[in-house]
Amino acid sequence: MDIERIATTDAPTPAGHYSQATAHNGLLYVAGQIPVRPDGVHTFDEPFEAQARQALANLLAIVRAGGSAPERLLKVNVYIVDIAHWPAFNRVYAEAFGDARPARAVIPVPELHHGYLVEIDAIAAR
Amino acid sequence: MDIERIATTDAPTPAGHYSQATAHNGLLYVAGQIPVRPDGVHTFDEPFEAQARQALANLLAIVRAGGSAPERLLKVNVYIVDIAHWPAFNRVYAEAFGDARPARAVIPVPELHHGYLVEIDAIAAR
Amino acid sequence: MDIERIATTDAPTPAGHYSQATAHNGLLYVAGQIPVRPDGVHTFDEPFEAQARQALANLLAIVRAGGSAPERLLKVNVYIVDIAHWPAFNRVYAEAFGDARPARAVIPVPELHHGYLVEIDAIAAR
Repeated sequence: MDIERIATTDAPTPAGHYSQATAHNGLLYVAGQIPVRPDGVHTFDEPFEAQARQALANLLAIVRAGGSAPERLLKVNVYIVDIAHWPAFNRVYAEAFGDARPARAVIPVPELHHGYLVEIDAIAAR
Repeated sequence: MDIERIATTDAPTPAGHYSQATAHNGLLYVAGQIPVRPDGVHTFDEPFEAQARQALANLLAIVRAGGSAPERLLKVNVYIVDIAHWPAFNRVYAEAFGDARPARAVIPVPELHHGYLVEIDAIAAR
Repeated sequence: MDIERIATTDAPTPAGHYSQATAHNGLLYVAGQIPVRPDGVHTFDEPFEAQARQALANLLAIVRAGGSAPERLLKVNVYIVDIAHWPAFNRVYAEAFGDARPARAVIPVPELHHGYLVEIDAIAAR
């Protein structure tokens, strides 16, 4: 099979009928990551910045497990509750990404699963 | 031309300026599918589960018309009104997908066109 | 490096930690474009149609700067505040796209950055 499913214990186990990521022909498609810890502990009571760091950590763990790297991300989509969090998100994101600057869209949503404030998915080159 | 437009009567005719799907270099990009029936009849009065089944049926009909298959889906995005529908959606989706487990993001939205409760788009390998 | 960052003065400079677009292996991933003018002037006080035209102009400027063209767009995502704008958006979009008909999803959102009414991102073949 030329399609690979990525599964790593460095990011939370999918709670539904999906894979953490799929890989095909040099590209990695990462599922939406909310700020659940890899051990399954929820963080919806934590402040926005902590949630953003955890969601990014999950995303980057899957990116690495899938044979890619932060600087090989091509497009990142960020789903955010309340656009007022944009500056805080951009700051945390810049710290996590460093020199990596994929194309990005920040998309406001009315709510997220479990009351989270941020979810992130991505396409990366391997 | 190395870009192909997919058109099938097994899914509703696009209501706007877009194709049901485009194909390029081994990948299929499927447009957002709402639960309109292939004959154009609207289903916005039906319960959430019926809407989810119709949207998935439309998506999978286009996937097949585009020379792909459910198990070759790479990433699925689900736009959902009211995240409380998440468990019902995941159940209907698991029934429709079986062993297929593409990466996925469920993205809450405040509303959808025509008052629908769910819309789905995807990227698949052919 | 096999990943290229696109930067053009024909579209607004990214306000955050991202590139206008990235290119890899024949595909171009364009960041979410809001209706800021290329010179940085905001247009959030303008009517919906003017905002849609500016967001599309930004998107297409980046598409061209990235070595692609409108008819080589594969998938366009449109984030829109108030789905009542759908007919106006589709009209402006059809005028801008002409014969080009990529797959598309129109995704309602509760708000957008700076109070804008529309944001657009895309994947294109080069």
